[in-house]
Amino acid sequence: MPLSKAEIARLRSLQDKKHRETLGRFVVEGEKVIGELLAAGVALTEIYATDEWPGARGANVVDVTRVTAVEMARISHFPTPANVLAVGRFTRVPLDPAALDRGLTLALDGIQDPGNVGTLLRIADWFALDRVVLSPDCADLFSQKVINASMGSFARVRVHTAPLAEALAACHVPVLGCDLNGADVHALPPVRDAVIVIGSEGRGLSSAVAACVTQRVTIPKFGGAESLNAAVAAGIVCDNLRRAQQS
Amino acid sequence: MPLSKAEIARLRSLQDKKHRETLGRFVVEGEKVIGELLAAGVALTEIYATDEWPGARGANVVDVTRVTAVEMARISHFPTPANVLAVGRFTRVPLDPAALDRGLTLALDGIQDPGNVGTLLRIADWFALDRVVLSPDCADLFSQKVINASMGSFARVRVHTAPLAEALAACHVPVLGCDLNGADVHALPPVRDAVIVIGSEGRGLSSAVAACVTQRVTIPKFGGAESLNAAVAAGIVCDNLRRAQQS
Repeated sequence: MPLSKAEIARLRSLQDKKHRETLGRFVVEGEKVIGELLAAGVALTEIYATDEWPGARGANVVDVTRVTAVEMARISHFPTPANVLAVGRFTRVPLDPAALDRGLTLALDGIQDPGNVGTLLRIADWFALDRVVLSPDCADLFSQKVINASMGSFARVRVHTAPLAEALAACHVPVLGCDLNGADVHALPPVRDAVIVIGSEGRGLSSAVAACVTQRVTIPKFGGAESLNAAVAAGIVCDNLRRAQQS
Repeated sequence: MPLSKAEIARLRSLQDKKHRETLGRFVVEGEKVIGELLAAGVALTEIYATDEWPGARGANVVDVTRVTAVEMARISHFPTPANVLAVGRFTRVPLDPAALDRGLTLALDGIQDPGNVGTLLRIADWFALDRVVLSPDCADLFSQKVINASMGSFARVRVHTAPLAEALAACHVPVLGCDLNGADVHALPPVRDAVIVIGSEGRGLSSAVAACVTQRVTIPKFGGAESLNAAVAAGIVCDNLRRAQQS
C-alpha cells in the first residue's frame, strides 16, 4: 500500500527540531546506523525500507513497511536516500541537579556542529563517562547528523539538555576547563567526581560557564597551532583523567 | 577594471584538483583563514576583496584587486561568498625516503574527509611532529576544506603526499598503529623516532599499510563505543608519545 501524503509529510517534518519535539520522535536513515541502534537496544517504532535493504538482526526489529525507491526519495531527508529509514521515540530526561556531584560529566557549551557533538558522545561512551550535558544552544541530540556521527554511542550515553551555567553553579565537584595557561593535564591528581566543560572552537566558553570553571587544565603544546579541535582536546583530557584514576 | 571572463574561469577552475595541479595554485576564501595564512608567512600571490574586507596586517600582503560583490559571487567556490579570496602558489615536496627514520611522522592512510585531514594537521602542528605523510587517496592537501579545517597549521607543518606502504616498508623506525588489542598507550616507552599511522574510520588501514605496522597500540577503553574518531585517537597517541619522551 503506497504511503499517504499525510504520512510522507509527517516523516519529512521530522527534519525540524520543532516537529520532533511536538511528536516526540526522531528519524534516522542508513543501514549501518540503524543496525547499530538496533544492536544497542534502541526501540525503533517504524522502519521503512526498499527491497534493497537486507534487513537487520536483533530482537528489536519492528514491522517493516516496504516502500518503493520513489517513496523513499520523498520521505528521505537527504539528496541521496538510503535504503532504510527508521523512526524512534524519545523522551528528554531532565537533569537531576544533584547528578553532577557524582561521577564524571562531560558538559558541552554551545557546540553547534552536529558532527562534533556526535564525536563527543563517542568519547563519553569510550571513556564510560557518567553523563553528557548539552547547553540548549548545542546541536540537537536528536538531529540525524548527531545520531550518525555518534555511531552507536547515542544509544549508550546518558545525555541531558540543560542550562549549563545554572547546573554548574549548583554543583560541588571540580569543574575542569581547557585553557592555554592551566595546570598540566599530565599532572592531574586522580578525581572520582568532576565535570569537564568544552566550549565551541569559534567562541570558546560562554562567560557564564567560564565563571564556573574551578580548575583550568592545559594540554602541553610543542608546536605552533593555536588550539586543538574541541573533540580532540576532550579526548585527551578524558584519557588523562582515566589514567590518573588508575595510577 | 572588471575581471575578465578568462580570469573568472581560471579562479573557478581551482576548485578542481586537476586544475590546481596544472597551475600549481590553490585558492582560499575568508577573512579568518587568509589572515592566518598571512600571519604564518604563506606567500599569497593574488588577493581579491570587496570593499567590505578590512584588510590584513602583516608583511606578505600582495596587491589587492578590488572586486564587486557580484564578481566575488562568480569567482567564489561557495554559495555564500566571503569578502576576500586569495590564491597561493604551491609545490609538492617529494618525500625523501630516509626522512621517516628521523623524528615523529604522522602517516594518514586513505583519510578522505577533508575536515579530518585538516584536524590531523592541527594535531601534528600542536605536537610539533616532524612531518605528515598523506597517502595519495587522502583528501587533497590543497583543497579549500583541508586548508580551512587546518586553521593556520596548513602553513606550519611539513606535508608530503606519497605511496604509504612503500615508504613504510623502507623505514627503520617503529611504525605504530591503533588497534583494540595492542600495547597500552599509557605504557609506551619513550621513542625519539617513530611513525604513527592512522586509517580511515570506515575502512581502517589498507592491508598493505597494516602489514608495515610493527607496534600495535591501544587506548584503554572503559565503555561501549567500538572506536574513537580517527583524529581523536591520533591526538591521544601523540599526547602519550610526547609525555613518554618527557618522563
